[in-house]
Amino acid sequence: MKIFVSNTLNVDEKEQLISIGVNDEFFIHGEFCENAPPHPDFLNSKICFGNVPVHWISSHPSLEWIQLMSVGFGEYLEIERSMMPPDFRMTNLAGFFAEPVAESMLAGLLALLRGINIMALLKEESSWEGDSLRGQLRTLEKSCVVLYGYGSINRRFAEILEPFHCKLEIINRSSSLDELDQVLPTADVVASTVPDTPQTRKVFDSRRLEFLKCNTIFLNFGRGSVLDENALGTKLIQRKLGGAVIDVTIDEPLPPDHVFWKCPQTIITQHSAGGTSDEIPAKISWFANNLKRFCKGEKMISEVNFEKGY
Amino acid sequence: MKIFVSNTLNVDEKEQLISIGVNDEFFIHGEFCENAPPHPDFLNSKICFGNVPVHWISSHPSLEWIQLMSVGFGEYLEIERSMMPPDFRMTNLAGFFAEPVAESMLAGLLALLRGINIMALLKEESSWEGDSLRGQLRTLEKSCVVLYGYGSINRRFAEILEPFHCKLEIINRSSSLDELDQVLPTADVVASTVPDTPQTRKVFDSRRLEFLKCNTIFLNFGRGSVLDENALGTKLIQRKLGGAVIDVTIDEPLPPDHVFWKCPQTIITQHSAGGTSDEIPAKISWFANNLKRFCKGEKMISEVNFEKGY
Repeated sequence: MKIFVSNTLNVDEKEQLISIGVNDEFFIHGEFCENAPPHPDFLNSKICFGNVPVHWISSHPSLEWIQLMSVGFGEYLEIERSMMPPDFRMTNLAGFFAEPVAESMLAGLLALLRGINIMALLKEESSWEGDSLRGQLRTLEKSCVVLYGYGSINRRFAEILEPFHCKLEIINRSSSLDELDQVLPTADVVASTVPDTPQTRKVFDSRRLEFLKCNTIFLNFGRGSVLDENALGTKLIQRKLGGAVIDVTIDEPLPPDHVFWKCPQTIITQHSAGGTSDEIPAKISWFANNLKRFCKGEKMISEVNFEKGY
Repeated sequence: MKIFVSNTLNVDEKEQLISIGVNDEFFIHGEFCENAPPHPDFLNSKICFGNVPVHWISSHPSLEWIQLMSVGFGEYLEIERSMMPPDFRMTNLAGFFAEPVAESMLAGLLALLRGINIMALLKEESSWEGDSLRGQLRTLEKSCVVLYGYGSINRRFAEILEPFHCKLEIINRSSSLDELDQVLPTADVVASTVPDTPQTRKVFDSRRLEFLKCNTIFLNFGRGSVLDENALGTKLIQRKLGGAVIDVTIDEPLPPDHVFWKCPQTIITQHSAGGTSDEIPAKISWFANNLKRFCKGEKMISEVNFEKGY
């Protein structure tokens, strides 16, 4: 089987990738610009591992499967179904990032509650504040946490919150916005992990952000489009919220004049929350597992349903 | 009963304290210098709430009980037993700080693993590093954690680590130093929460620190005397350790020229880990509970055993 790979790999990673093949031939390339023409190796392969430009998909009628290197795949939804290769399947990395992202969520949340962000800055200045810090600190135990979205990330987040005896309010796809509105005023923490879909866009607009208490901490680890960033930034600057941990933003890199840079009690994790030092080898292992399943005609892990959009 | 109080309280806290008394008379003062002479109100009281100068204790033969505002009480161990009031009892706050301290331990540990300390500094500079951060990040899941000390704090820390499926190695009072030496080379994390006793002093000397792996993270939330601070600092600067979260140090405030200020991947929590915004009211409630027990002749919470030194 010919497999096109679009991902910058080092020598060890290339070796790992090639070792998973049986009778497979790998064409390993880096990343391509959005407007690059389809590479001949791509047009000659049945399988693609990596996020190639969207228009390549509709120009390759015999492509059978693409394994994305991401969870997000919104850009590929723009291809009309009729323009896709007929038996085309797409798998993403849904579930792959649950552990590191949930750990980054808890890391950021506990950092705000226990003052770690402030202490990191004091250390740079060799500045001891000591006892006067204590009164600013809070604990997580028995907090009310609203989980907006209940895919693999917030499920794992719920698991690692368990010893803290929090009250969890789960808002999933089958919940109404009314249900969300009812729980928001009770939230000590709101954790959004939803993808970008027409249903999730600007759910946290300025009106809905007003429902939050002045000590609520907002975590955004899904997509930036879920909220009105300016409205959130204004509330943070006016100290009408307890803080925010922001992994995803509408524009990335976050522009230098963006309001979030100036917000107090705000941690910006720069879309790194899915990262680990063994990320690429782990993705190759994920692909290897799906490749075996694909060859055997078995169900693959995290296949995208184009109709449902997830 | 006449009760001497040595603790700076605001109006609400004074009101809370007075409301717990039945036929009690409170003499509320602030803190005193170590060499201040015993206050007449103190010499006139049977109960003391707060950490008064050590020499006051031996100059007040009819003092019945002191409720300390701290867990540590090493300074009071210096009084010879024969110089103490005959029926004198001492309670400390052992257990009181378990939740906030364990949360600060996890906050600091996850911050180092997930890069929160680095991201806090990047935010100050409005600096986006994005993807290049990902390869520096690690996860806590399935780490090997050595718990040095197994009182209320490390017990609670063990509980909140549970969802991470770590391998816990517990070194408690009945363990030998050989047992400690055997587990140290396997440790991803070492968490020390022991008090200052002759047995714990300088346990982590330069020889023993050599047993640690180059990615081990050292947490010190017990007492600074447990380690050779210069040896730890040198290893951190030479990048022979993964990082450290330091709440307690031999000298506090930490002197401006102390090596810890210059160590990479080091979070200094400035002996604030026990702090919460409701700390004083919670301490008053703790005292109220013990006062009720004292009056009824019941066992009090966290009474110090002078012979054992804890």
